[in-house]
Amino acid sequence: MDLKSQLKMIKRGVQEIISEEELVEKLEKSQREGRALKVKYGADPSAPDIHLGHAVPLRKLKQFQDLGHEVIFVIGDFTGRIGDPSGRSETRRQLTEEEVFENARTYHEQVSKILDPKKTRITFNNDWLGKLSFADVIRLASKYTVARMLERDDFRGRLSEQKPIGVHEFLYPLAQAYDSVALEADIELGGTDQTFNFVMTRDIQREFGQEPQVVITMPLLEGTDGVLKMSKSYGNYVGLNDPPSIMYGKTMSIPDGIMVKWFELLTTISDQELELIKEGLSSGSLHPRDVKMMLAREIVTMYWGAEAARAAEEEFKQVFQEGGLPHQIPVVCLDKRDLTGGKMWIVELLTRAGLAPSRSEARRLVTQGGVRVDQRRVTDDEVDVPIRDGLIIQVGKRRFAQVRLER
Amino acid sequence: MDLKSQLKMIKRGVQEIISEEELVEKLEKSQREGRALKVKYGADPSAPDIHLGHAVPLRKLKQFQDLGHEVIFVIGDFTGRIGDPSGRSETRRQLTEEEVFENARTYHEQVSKILDPKKTRITFNNDWLGKLSFADVIRLASKYTVARMLERDDFRGRLSEQKPIGVHEFLYPLAQAYDSVALEADIELGGTDQTFNFVMTRDIQREFGQEPQVVITMPLLEGTDGVLKMSKSYGNYVGLNDPPSIMYGKTMSIPDGIMVKWFELLTTISDQELELIKEGLSSGSLHPRDVKMMLAREIVTMYWGAEAARAAEEEFKQVFQEGGLPHQIPVVCLDKRDLTGGKMWIVELLTRAGLAPSRSEARRLVTQGGVRVDQRRVTDDEVDVPIRDGLIIQVGKRRFAQVRLER
Repeated sequence: MDLKSQLKMIKRGVQEIISEEELVEKLEKSQREGRALKVKYGADPSAPDIHLGHAVPLRKLKQFQDLGHEVIFVIGDFTGRIGDPSGRSETRRQLTEEEVFENARTYHEQVSKILDPKKTRITFNNDWLGKLSFADVIRLASKYTVARMLERDDFRGRLSEQKPIGVHEFLYPLAQAYDSVALEADIELGGTDQTFNFVMTRDIQREFGQEPQVVITMPLLEGTDGVLKMSKSYGNYVGLNDPPSIMYGKTMSIPDGIMVKWFELLTTISDQELELIKEGLSSGSLHPRDVKMMLAREIVTMYWGAEAARAAEEEFKQVFQEGGLPHQIPVVCLDKRDLTGGKMWIVELLTRAGLAPSRSEARRLVTQGGVRVDQRRVTDDEVDVPIRDGLIIQVGKRRFAQVRLER
Repeated sequence: MDLKSQLKMIKRGVQEIISEEELVEKLEKSQREGRALKVKYGADPSAPDIHLGHAVPLRKLKQFQDLGHEVIFVIGDFTGRIGDPSGRSETRRQLTEEEVFENARTYHEQVSKILDPKKTRITFNNDWLGKLSFADVIRLASKYTVARMLERDDFRGRLSEQKPIGVHEFLYPLAQAYDSVALEADIELGGTDQTFNFVMTRDIQREFGQEPQVVITMPLLEGTDGVLKMSKSYGNYVGLNDPPSIMYGKTMSIPDGIMVKWFELLTTISDQELELIKEGLSSGSLHPRDVKMMLAREIVTMYWGAEAARAAEEEFKQVFQEGGLPHQIPVVCLDKRDLTGGKMWIVELLTRAGLAPSRSEARRLVTQGGVRVDQRRVTDDEVDVPIRDGLIIQVGKRRFAQVRLER
């Protein structure tokens, strides 16, 4: 592929490249010297459940692999093993070595749904960060100023709102920058929320006498709520490991307004097809529900194949055939630890799913015969319902919720 | 000694105690349990030349020794061995292990002029700071916030003036705080410019589950210029190792206005004697020059004995007997590396000493017979003068300079 076509491919769907000029130089040099570029991607060691939000940069990484370059995953086990020393964040608990490796294994397995596992290198940053002494840290920290650190939006915001920033939080971006130094990264890829850290890394690499990495940022994907960034902690994600029916159902739950963006960032449909969809939606010749079903089918096909996608669609249609398909189905996340013998009391389930405002109202709905679980009517308000991932709860004709079982 | 007398002794000449209540508790507990308190004092590993500015806290440490407590010197060799990684400070060069130990030896020797060497423990903070890993540093840094760090006057000032603060500079006060944790210090003593760091150390000790140290700060001593804090780098210091005649001469060079403060902080004269001096000076019954000679004699006596002090005073009087004693004698610092065969051209010497505005004027002064070196007239404007520490240069009847030879 010539350089111009390569560049066109790389630029598609990208938010920002810093800088395009340097990227061209690196691509040229790589071709001239027959040396693959090192494309770095940072991965969270605590979240083995990869979702469509990750898929956006992963699909871009796949393009680099197809162009013959080397993709390097950096599992952030160094910070993962420290956890949150300030004790403020409950989600950032300390991980053991075993957990890190198990998570990385799962990660690798999931990532392989998009990337070529043979061309993907997995590294653990504790391998080099764990070897740094206090003196090394001081030397590293001396390469950046407090003022520039405070230019980062979230730091500046928290400082002016008098929310605490731990001094150690200034060390994390430096640690991440050092990852690029240790790997001699040519390119770093990630979400736009990482732009500050990535650009800072360029300065640190220069200080270490290296050529600065080219920064490529991808747009952030909003989750199923259509508002917040897709994230496991917001519960608005579609996991790459979600079974076909859940993946299909969750996609069907997104607001109409973000369908086009999902098409753009998550599927392989051509620019022409996308234009047709946009036109159809604005003229009204296409029904939003049908477009969303097309999107859900596309996505499930990518990760589970066409057969699974067709089956998921059939199941979805069957469940909702009575009252016509709803535009959005809320997903209720339940923790396995909340269940007793894998079951949950029907009244508890309805209130948790937001389908009843109170327990007495939930009892009333059940005893009046308005509640179905997986299409089967439930009339006993003392019953314990066996919970499975993907379970559909229905109240009346038009109100639904789907269970996502965690852990 | 009862507690009340102990407290009175400790409080004399002190700027601030944080807090007096906790100090009383620690003193009581120490007496009750028969356990000596650990009194920490931080020492610079690069400046073995201890001066009267250091003598202020050292004399306070001596009182703690006299009360049976343990004085611990912390030689900051950890940072000394890193030097200035940002490369901005020329004075903070990187020290070798040999230099650190040689400096510490000299330090110990000089400190022994004030402290009891047998009751003085010398520690090197590289022993514990050098063992910290990056993970340990993150845990340590998590115990303090950026906002509180920026409350430190110099940081806040530099940030608002857009002067760079390296991120590593936030780690130095934390390292110093960790010294107290490692030593389980009961008391830390130092200059008022250290108040922020010392108070912060209390917080860090609490975070490590220790009882916070009591902070005792001593007033800063102005140097021989009477304006700036006494410091080797300002060249306005009287070294504890300065020979008697230099020590005497430098003391005679201080402005009248700071004599009383020097008496208070540097000598053992009683409060009554001090009152008499103040009264004598304000009523005019005492001549400032006589008071200053008394001060110089007191100081030299403390470090070199009464005999040496008397000899220094005699020498001083002889040198200046012709035209009456000047109020101040400027000290000109010369570097050994500026000399050729231990000598300096008379014209160069006069201009360096500020006794001639130009080389042609210096030549004129010499050839006209107005210049004396160590009381001997010099008339040849091509002569090279052998330079010794304490050399007195005189122009006309009233203008003097004394040489301080460095290195």
